[in-house]
Amino acid sequence: MNEGDQVPSRKRAIVVNFKTYLESSGPGALSLAKLCEQVSQETGAEMIVAPPMLDLAMVAASVKIPVFAQHLDSVPSGSTTGHVTVENAKASGAKGTLVNHSERRIKIAEIHDIIDRSRNASLATIVCTNNLAVSKACAAMEPDFVAIEPPELIGGDISVTTANPKIVADTVKSIRTISSKVGVLCGAGVKNGRDVAKAIELGTDGVLLASGVVKAKDRRAVLLDLVSGLK
Amino acid sequence: MNEGDQVPSRKRAIVVNFKTYLESSGPGALSLAKLCEQVSQETGAEMIVAPPMLDLAMVAASVKIPVFAQHLDSVPSGSTTGHVTVENAKASGAKGTLVNHSERRIKIAEIHDIIDRSRNASLATIVCTNNLAVSKACAAMEPDFVAIEPPELIGGDISVTTANPKIVADTVKSIRTISSKVGVLCGAGVKNGRDVAKAIELGTDGVLLASGVVKAKDRRAVLLDLVSGLK
Amino acid sequence: MNEGDQVPSRKRAIVVNFKTYLESSGPGALSLAKLCEQVSQETGAEMIVAPPMLDLAMVAASVKIPVFAQHLDSVPSGSTTGHVTVENAKASGAKGTLVNHSERRIKIAEIHDIIDRSRNASLATIVCTNNLAVSKACAAMEPDFVAIEPPELIGGDISVTTANPKIVADTVKSIRTISSKVGVLCGAGVKNGRDVAKAIELGTDGVLLASGVVKAKDRRAVLLDLVSGLK
Amino acid sequence: MNEGDQVPSRKRAIVVNFKTYLESSGPGALSLAKLCEQVSQETGAEMIVAPPMLDLAMVAASVKIPVFAQHLDSVPSGSTTGHVTVENAKASGAKGTLVNHSERRIKIAEIHDIIDRSRNASLATIVCTNNLAVSKACAAMEPDFVAIEPPELIGGDISVTTANPKIVADTVKSIRTISSKVGVLCGAGVKNGRDVAKAIELGTDGVLLASGVVKAKDRRAVLLDLVSGLK
Repeated sequence: MNEGDQVPSRKRAIVVNFKTYLESSGPGALSLAKLCEQVSQETGAEMIVAPPMLDLAMVAASVKIPVFAQHLDSVPSGSTTGHVTVENAKASGAKGTLVNHSERRIKIAEIHDIIDRSRNASLATIVCTNNLAVSKACAAMEPDFVAIEPPELIGGDISVTTANPKIVADTVKSIRTISSKVGVLCGAGVKNGRDVAKAIELGTDGVLLASGVVKAKDRRAVLLDLVSGLK
Repeated sequence: MNEGDQVPSRKRAIVVNFKTYLESSGPGALSLAKLCEQVSQETGAEMIVAPPMLDLAMVAASVKIPVFAQHLDSVPSGSTTGHVTVENAKASGAKGTLVNHSERRIKIAEIHDIIDRSRNASLATIVCTNNLAVSKACAAMEPDFVAIEPPELIGGDISVTTANPKIVADTVKSIRTISSKVGVLCGAGVKNGRDVAKAIELGTDGVLLASGVVKAKDRRAVLLDLVSGLK
Repeated sequence: MNEGDQVPSRKRAIVVNFKTYLESSGPGALSLAKLCEQVSQETGAEMIVAPPMLDLAMVAASVKIPVFAQHLDSVPSGSTTGHVTVENAKASGAKGTLVNHSERRIKIAEIHDIIDRSRNASLATIVCTNNLAVSKACAAMEPDFVAIEPPELIGGDISVTTANPKIVADTVKSIRTISSKVGVLCGAGVKNGRDVAKAIELGTDGVLLASGVVKAKDRRAVLLDLVSGLK
Repeated sequence: MNEGDQVPSRKRAIVVNFKTYLESSGPGALSLAKLCEQVSQETGAEMIVAPPMLDLAMVAASVKIPVFAQHLDSVPSGSTTGHVTVENAKASGAKGTLVNHSERRIKIAEIHDIIDRSRNASLATIVCTNNLAVSKACAAMEPDFVAIEPPELIGGDISVTTANPKIVADTVKSIRTISSKVGVLCGAGVKNGRDVAKAIELGTDGVLLASGVVKAKDRRAVLLDLVSGLK
C-alpha cells in the first residue's frame, strides 16, 4: 500500500475542489488530477482532489493521491437512483468526501450520518462551514476536518487569511474547545503560497480552494507556489 | 462512428438502471455494463445502461453502448460543487440521462431545463412519470422518451404489463395526442422477455428495469431473455 | 352562501399575492385583505387574496372574498409537522391555493397531487409557470388556472403584457389545444388597469400581482384602477 | 404584560405540537389551544402550543399561553412566497418556534440562521435532534432548548424516558459541557405524568409531545396528568 492509499488525517494538505467547471470536467478532470499528483510526488506535499461527481471512479483509477467526492447523499445503497452513497464512493475508489459545501448544504442529521458511515467505511470527511457557531456545531460531530469558508469571501479576490484572519484563528481555537481530533482547514479566495503559509500560521492544517487552481493560466506554477506555503 | 455512439431515438430499447446497488457499483458497474454491451453486440438489440453516478465516466470510456446518467441537476456548470450538470455529463461521455426518476423527483421547471439543455448538447432524455396526467404533462415538454412507472408496482414481483396493461396502453395513446415525437417506455416489475414483448405489443418502445437484471443470478440469461421480447 | 364562498372558476379575477412582505403580514395582512374585500364589494369584481401562510385562518375568518394559500405541501395530514396540507387549508377556510409559484417551485408529481386533492376538497388551484412548454405541461394536469409569469420580468417595472404580449397570447392558445377548462392568468410587472385590460384582451382570465398592490402608496386607488381593467 | 406574553426560557414546560392532524386543525386548533390555556391557568404550569401553520395568527390572537410555529424558513421577508419567515412569525403573534423537527429537518446553516434571527426578534427556539452528537452540535449554536427525540421511538407506545432513559441523561450531561444556557426537552412516546416526572428527574426542562394529547379521548384529563409530572 503506498502513501496515496492512506486516509489522510491531520497531515497538512491542499484540497483542490474541481467544482463543475468544464475546464476540470471529463478529460479535463483527469489531466488536472494528474498534475496535482505530479506536484504531490515531486514535493512530498499532501494534495487531495475532488473531481466532478461523474469522473470520480475514472480519476481514482488513474492517480495515487487521495480522491474525494464533492458530496455524498445520506441515503442507503440500493433503490436510490440518482444519489451517491457512502458505499458507492468507497467502491469507486474515493478516500473521503466534502460534506455540506457552501454550494451543496445538507441537513444536520445528514451531516452526522455521512460522518458516521464514512468513518465506518474508512473514508475521511471535510465538513464545510460558514461561521464560528456552525464550525463548533460541526466539530461536535467529529469529522476529520472542518473547513471554514466565510460566504462573503468565496469566489473573491482576497484570501480569507488576509480579509478575516480572526475568523480563522477563532475557529481553530473554538474547535479545540470541542475536540482535539478534528482538523481545521480554511478557504475562500486562497490563491498562493503566502495565503497557505498564513493559514498554517493561524493554526489550520491547510486550505481548500478551487478557481485559484482550475482557472489558473499556469496551473503547475500555482500548485508549486501553494505547496511551498505548507512548510 | 459506430452504432453505440448514436443518441438513441425511437429505437426499441432495454434500459438497465444500475441504481446504487453495491452489486453494480464501482468494479461491479463496469462488469455489468460490459455484459450488457456483449448482449447488445450479439443480438443487435439496443441496450442502454445507467450506472451509479461516480462510475459514469469510467463506464462510458469502456463500453460502446449508450451510457446514461441516472440524474442531472438543473444548475449551471462552474460554482455548483456536488451537483452534476448537463455539460459535465456530455464531457464525461454520457449519451443521455434519466430525468425525474421515482427515487429522484425534480421540479417541473427543472425537468424542462434539463430536456432543453440536453437537446442542445445532443443528449437523450428519458423522463420518468407516475401516472397518466403527469405523463401527458411531461410529453408536452418533448423529451425523447416518457417512461411510465406506476409507483405501487415498483420493486414488485408483477410486471406493470401484467398488473396494469391499461395504464401502459392509455399512456401511449394519450402521449400521442400531445406529440408524435415522444417515445414511450414502461417500467416496474419487468423481469423477462414476455414482459418486454407485452410492453411492445401495448405500443411502447421498450422497458426500463433495474433489480430484474442487477439482482439476477444469471444476468446473461436474463438479458438474453429480455432482449428476445423486443422483436 | 354568499358569492365569496364560491370556488372561483373562470370568472375574471385579480389575484393579490401578499408574499411575505412585512407590510402585508400579521395585522397588515388583515387590513389589506379587508381593503381588497371592500373594493370587490363596491365594484363587483372578483378579487382573490393570498396572505402570508401563518395569517390564512385569521384572514379567512374576517373577509368574504376568496382567500388562497400561497403554497401547499404534497404530504398527508397527520405526522407532517411544519408542512401545510390540502386538508389543513380547507379546515382553515382557504378557497384555493397557488401552486408552484416562482418563489416556491415544487416537483411535477407534487403539482399533480395538489391539483387532484384540491379538486376533491373543492379548493381551486392556480399553477404558476415560467414558459410556454411548462404552461402546456401544467395545463395537461387540469388545474383551475395556469398563471404564466416569465421569470425575467418578475419584480420588474414593465408589465408582461407590454414587454412580451406574444408569450401571453401564445400561452392562451397553446393551453386551449390541451384543455378548454383551464383558465389562464398572467403576471410579472402588472401595475395598473391598462395592464389588466391588455391581459384580458390577450385572452386571459385576469392577473396575478403582488408588489404593485402591497407596496403602493395609495392601495385603494391602485386596486380600483386594476379592477377597472377587468371590464 | 401577563405571564403568557413572556418568551419562555428555562421554565419547565409541556410543549404540545398539533402537527397537521385534522383533529387539531382550523376550528380544532383553536379549541385545543384554549383547553391548553385553561389547564395552564388552572395549574400554573407552563404550556406551549404549536398549531398548524395556517392557524398560527388566529390561535395567537385567542390565547395567552405562548404559541410557537412548527417550522420557519431561513429566507428573508419579501419575495419569498409560500415560505414563513422569522419576521412573519413575530408579526403574527408567535412567541417562538420549533426548529428542525424530525418531520421537517433543515440544513445546519439554516438552523443557525433561524436561531440567530429569532433571538433578535425575541422569539424562543426549540431545536429538535435525533441523537447525542447532533444534540451537542445544536447546543453549540445556543438555541433556547434542544429537544432530543430518538427517531425509532417517535410515534411509539413507550416513552423515551422508559425506553432509553440513558440517552436523555447523556444528552443533558453532554449539552452541559457545551453551554449552561441551553435548556433540554425530550420527546417520543411521552403520554402521561409519570413520563413527565421521569423526564424532569433525568435533568430535562420538560417534554415535547403530540399524539398523546391530540388523539386522547379525554384531552383535559391527559393534560392535567401531564402537568402533574412537572412538579
